[in-house]
Amino acid sequence: MFNVAVVGATGAVGTTMLRVLEERGFPVTELRPLASARSAGRTLDYLGKPFTVQELTTDSFAGIDIALFSAGGSRSRDFAPAAVDAGAVVIDNSSYFRMRPDVPLVVPEVNEDAIPAHQGIIANPNCVAAPLVVALKPIADAVGLERVVVSSYQAVSGTGAAAIEELRAQTGGNLAGDEPEPSVYPHPIAFNVLPHIGPFDENGYSDEELKVIAETKKMLGLPDLAVSATCVRVPVFHGHSEAIHIETTEPIDATHVRELLMAAPGISLRDEPGDGVYPLPREAEGLDEVLVGRIRKDLSHPNGIALWLSSDNLRKGAATNAVQIAESLVTNGWITPSTV
Amino acid sequence: MFNVAVVGATGAVGTTMLRVLEERGFPVTELRPLASARSAGRTLDYLGKPFTVQELTTDSFAGIDIALFSAGGSRSRDFAPAAVDAGAVVIDNSSYFRMRPDVPLVVPEVNEDAIPAHQGIIANPNCVAAPLVVALKPIADAVGLERVVVSSYQAVSGTGAAAIEELRAQTGGNLAGDEPEPSVYPHPIAFNVLPHIGPFDENGYSDEELKVIAETKKMLGLPDLAVSATCVRVPVFHGHSEAIHIETTEPIDATHVRELLMAAPGISLRDEPGDGVYPLPREAEGLDEVLVGRIRKDLSHPNGIALWLSSDNLRKGAATNAVQIAESLVTNGWITPSTV
Repeated sequence: MFNVAVVGATGAVGTTMLRVLEERGFPVTELRPLASARSAGRTLDYLGKPFTVQELTTDSFAGIDIALFSAGGSRSRDFAPAAVDAGAVVIDNSSYFRMRPDVPLVVPEVNEDAIPAHQGIIANPNCVAAPLVVALKPIADAVGLERVVVSSYQAVSGTGAAAIEELRAQTGGNLAGDEPEPSVYPHPIAFNVLPHIGPFDENGYSDEELKVIAETKKMLGLPDLAVSATCVRVPVFHGHSEAIHIETTEPIDATHVRELLMAAPGISLRDEPGDGVYPLPREAEGLDEVLVGRIRKDLSHPNGIALWLSSDNLRKGAATNAVQIAESLVTNGWITPSTV
Repeated sequence: MFNVAVVGATGAVGTTMLRVLEERGFPVTELRPLASARSAGRTLDYLGKPFTVQELTTDSFAGIDIALFSAGGSRSRDFAPAAVDAGAVVIDNSSYFRMRPDVPLVVPEVNEDAIPAHQGIIANPNCVAAPLVVALKPIADAVGLERVVVSSYQAVSGTGAAAIEELRAQTGGNLAGDEPEPSVYPHPIAFNVLPHIGPFDENGYSDEELKVIAETKKMLGLPDLAVSATCVRVPVFHGHSEAIHIETTEPIDATHVRELLMAAPGISLRDEPGDGVYPLPREAEGLDEVLVGRIRKDLSHPNGIALWLSSDNLRKGAATNAVQIAESLVTNGWITPSTV
């Protein structure tokens, strides 16, 4: 049994982490919800019992075995080392450590074998990159992967609770004939799409796009893979979707891709488009699996395949994947329980 | 001066055609709004005067010089030949005639020179293909074009007035905690995205995707161009957007593409992403220009360029382009006025 801290426990991902720990029966002895001073004192429910949120400090981690961080990059930077010093394994949902060579960046279905090399911190990937590599890994293993072009359709819950409220209030305002001023996003998100997720670099790429590109290569273990991305926020509450066009090393047909993905872990195939069956973000909501469908030859390349996926960005894109990493530590004996 | 019939005058595109004819001061002698028997007798406003909608029959076109059709493929099939027989030039917004070799498929900024070969019918392109070729043509002319991969973010107004109402009612219902049954679309469109526009073929492509692919090649005059598309409906009322990844024949950098597109007709550049300036569907609404931005090297290909566009699907994607074709007939002397 393990003592588990959840850092950022009151946030959209943090509360989902509690739900996922419950649902999957993670062997928790002590649960320690941590958050900023502003949220300290609030009560969270875990397995039907109330837990008081404690203020996050460098002294928060005594006796903790596993610390799930989801409180933003600066909190991970400032507090993850303290957790490691206290003997915990940190599973960090922020982007802060992801690209460090000494930090494994892990989706267990894809590169679980990277976990044991950790130096105390294991990074949880970006919420577009995580489902993407789940879908691509079986194809890469079977026929090789040369290039990936992905366009995303990302839900506002990826931004956080304030963005969910902004979409709700702005949409209601629009329907009533008002135009509420945006505050979370730079432009209205209601009945709009925004090709802007994170700051832009000098080459015109958004931070989100650069994360998707770099993390996909790292997790697939293909540093020379050609990857490009356009990341777009859409007026959806929960569930990221992705239009994916790939080029494989050896040719492969859609039927074979379908067989590979049907047999692959973490994927639920939804691919009967003629019957209206394809991945939808609203159907992905609440599921731990990545929904994959619209699998077809990419007509523009001899070795091209096109596909479409939807995934719950708070689950496989964040909380579920973090808990799966913790499960992997446990089931592989890569972490020693402090309690029995 | 010209006698102009608008077929499907009460629909979303038809009413926009009236607005565009007004705004652009098209030289109309007689305006004849036509629609199904169900809509006949309704009154439409044109230049501040009421016009009574007449029932569409094969006898509707006596004296008409230009017939703008936007009433669906079967009405175009059944009535366009009668309009041609009556001496009119048909500009048809349906897909029915678009791929016929004897029918020019035209975006005037791109292939105006195809117009005079018409045999009575000129086709107006699909609402994703039209803005796409406006953005691609200057690049194709400058450095050659090898491949286009496009993912669309399409507004419900492309489906028609009932879809606009479905999005509105369903969104309001959702916000109130209800889940109204979808009727226009097979799944909820409120707070969702649907990778399904038109029926699917045996290869898993939707009809919309196949139109984008075939029409892009035809209008650019590049039958061997490699094109692939994923077409997606999003909960936006007006304005289609597109994430476009292309490969050019000769390499080109983003600055040069920006210069080409700034000088090109029909384009308004919105490309200062660091200042929050990029194409948005809600900002494209009501504009005749295609908004283009997010121009950058595609990091996944040596000759790759990525860009993003938004365009009013009822205007450049339909009504404006049709009226521009009519203007081209007039200004080039390719049609003889029946009245002075």
